[in-house]
Amino acid sequence: MLQISQRGIEMPASPIRKLVPFAEAAKKRGIHIYHLNIGQPDVETPKIAIDAVRNMDIKVLEYSHSAGNESYRKKLAGYYQTKNIHVDHNDIIITTGGSEAILFGFMSCLNPGDEVIIPEPFYANYNGFAVEAGVTVKPIFSSIKTGFALPPIEEFEKKITDKTKAIIICNPNNPTGYLYSREELEALRTIIKKHDLYLFADEAYREFCYTGTHTSAMELEGVEEHVILMDTVSKRYSACGARIGAFVTKNKQVLQTAMKFAQARLSPPSYGQILGEAAIGVSQDYFDHTREEYIARRDALVGRLNTMKGVFCPNPGGAFYAMASLPVDDADRFSQWLLESWEYEGATVMVAPGTGFYSTPGLGKNEVRFAYVLNTESIHKAMDCLERALENYPGSTK
Amino acid sequence: MLQISQRGIEMPASPIRKLVPFAEAAKKRGIHIYHLNIGQPDVETPKIAIDAVRNMDIKVLEYSHSAGNESYRKKLAGYYQTKNIHVDHNDIIITTGGSEAILFGFMSCLNPGDEVIIPEPFYANYNGFAVEAGVTVKPIFSSIKTGFALPPIEEFEKKITDKTKAIIICNPNNPTGYLYSREELEALRTIIKKHDLYLFADEAYREFCYTGTHTSAMELEGVEEHVILMDTVSKRYSACGARIGAFVTKNKQVLQTAMKFAQARLSPPSYGQILGEAAIGVSQDYFDHTREEYIARRDALVGRLNTMKGVFCPNPGGAFYAMASLPVDDADRFSQWLLESWEYEGATVMVAPGTGFYSTPGLGKNEVRFAYVLNTESIHKAMDCLERALENYPGSTK
Repeated sequence: MLQISQRGIEMPASPIRKLVPFAEAAKKRGIHIYHLNIGQPDVETPKIAIDAVRNMDIKVLEYSHSAGNESYRKKLAGYYQTKNIHVDHNDIIITTGGSEAILFGFMSCLNPGDEVIIPEPFYANYNGFAVEAGVTVKPIFSSIKTGFALPPIEEFEKKITDKTKAIIICNPNNPTGYLYSREELEALRTIIKKHDLYLFADEAYREFCYTGTHTSAMELEGVEEHVILMDTVSKRYSACGARIGAFVTKNKQVLQTAMKFAQARLSPPSYGQILGEAAIGVSQDYFDHTREEYIARRDALVGRLNTMKGVFCPNPGGAFYAMASLPVDDADRFSQWLLESWEYEGATVMVAPGTGFYSTPGLGKNEVRFAYVLNTESIHKAMDCLERALENYPGSTK
Repeated sequence: MLQISQRGIEMPASPIRKLVPFAEAAKKRGIHIYHLNIGQPDVETPKIAIDAVRNMDIKVLEYSHSAGNESYRKKLAGYYQTKNIHVDHNDIIITTGGSEAILFGFMSCLNPGDEVIIPEPFYANYNGFAVEAGVTVKPIFSSIKTGFALPPIEEFEKKITDKTKAIIICNPNNPTGYLYSREELEALRTIIKKHDLYLFADEAYREFCYTGTHTSAMELEGVEEHVILMDTVSKRYSACGARIGAFVTKNKQVLQTAMKFAQARLSPPSYGQILGEAAIGVSQDYFDHTREEYIARRDALVGRLNTMKGVFCPNPGGAFYAMASLPVDDADRFSQWLLESWEYEGATVMVAPGTGFYSTPGLGKNEVRFAYVLNTESIHKAMDCLERALENYPGSTK
């Protein structure tokens, strides 16, 4: 009897996508869906980047260098300089999305059975890459009550064993939107230095900071060998389909190891690299405009949520996500009910249930993640719909 | 002390790329290099495919479906129908290059410690994906004397243990160019059925068959659940930089498992999918013309090699590679010498040493792989250069 692998069995299905069949059925019934469930921005990809691809004059679409085109890496290093991240192009491997940067980090630094600590709730796909690498995720609870701030360093100390090799921090955070302060990053610096751990820094949402400024893990002094930056153009330039990211570190041994994984898959996508390189020329206006737009959306979403009875949503400092607790028996059931049994003015709302972002069973049962990737008018309509849904949901705990 | 992972240590560096620094130094000395070392075709990417990308009118470059765009998968299924591969779009996951299809196959079907049998010499990057998945490669010797035909089935029987879970066949073969016959595939059918093994079929070079026709492993009857097709557009349309491949199987459990790995990395590249979909409209003329060109190149290369004293090169039936034995002490040393110490009329030749394609130590020591990806005029000049190099090489064994 042919069998699939144990890791194939353990590999989690996407918690965000499991509601898709219910959404498709709702659409077939003619119901409009406000998609607040997935981090696919509606913001336009910069024209300068799109045009660079359109204007390419290619005869043979060749492999690029396994680390990515040198011209792109040089410009990207220049971009990082402006963000107080002092690297050169030899510290960078261009990856196929941020996803591959995460995979390369796990594969290069961690052995099967090793442990990686992640404040939960966290980006669900870390689980998938952990399964691929045979690594165990050790979650540390961060509470909605503190707005999902970094848990006290003592909590990290408690989780550290002789198998602990790394901590992952996503800043600003997906799914919580929390923006870690310099002090919090300094606390992480202390612990990774003390226990000789890697710090995997997922900074996909660097450009989306609303309260305070972003501190990169790459700025931390004295731990340059410990830090690996996992980056992507997906959100920065609303170019998720380009599948272009970056693996960045000053640790030469780690970089050379990751290069072997990069060579095995030959090269990152050529078109995406052209787009990424051109996007570096985008003006600050683009980011300012985008930031203003997201602040308006966040204010609309969070403002509305906190006026609803039994709902609590901390105000996120970055990214374009917010986690809220709802007065419901089970947010998975409620999310499905929204798609299966609810409509208001011909529409309903799709959200991501909180449980998918926690690795400790039972946590997040009354929480959902909202991605504020729709314009404020749509957000208001979605909130009208949600407010009435909460009043009518049979499993309400109000 | 921070350490890299054990698999990071075990991960092989690319054997094809390790000569690159010597080539770069030669170029700096003003020497022209005939690149016969890497499977980067010089054939133009079809204009219809390039234009499809140029003409795209995109506002937001979104994620695609994790399995790839449905429209593309439907057209791809149509292409496969014309190749006697009867699948529909639900049997296909679009991958990031053929590389990712191989990785998904290993990850979905094999456990750490499992064994996979591969006739050697074989595509070196299988080693890398095996290390990523913790799988052990068990090579079976195929001989240059038989033109690298499939080893007798008894040899497979001898290698099979209770840990054996799969066989990989690359057809037509990289690096040997051997085109497996229907009878050879039937022999594989018998053994995978008898021992309940997966058959991973890498058919990247399907369109490049010169003697006889291609038989796909997907045509084998009664083993539909066993066969996984690993495909790519890289060579078919000379579109290596698109990073688009396909994972194809009738085994639903395997496909659903691979989908979880696909979801973790979100989606394959959007631009590459547009290119791949448009390329399906390429006329048969394109393939006929390309085939003629490669036959001329093969004939030039193999003809010239076999006139050289002490050189033997079987005539390959497909792909665009040929393995030859040379009268040298050590082909690695000879390949490096060509770049470091040789020139003829201001030029030298870069080849891929045979040892990189064998996993048994000591094999392939006097063999090299030629990729005939240059036009016949260049091939003749490269052969002029090589012929004289063999006459002058200090480690000659003639």
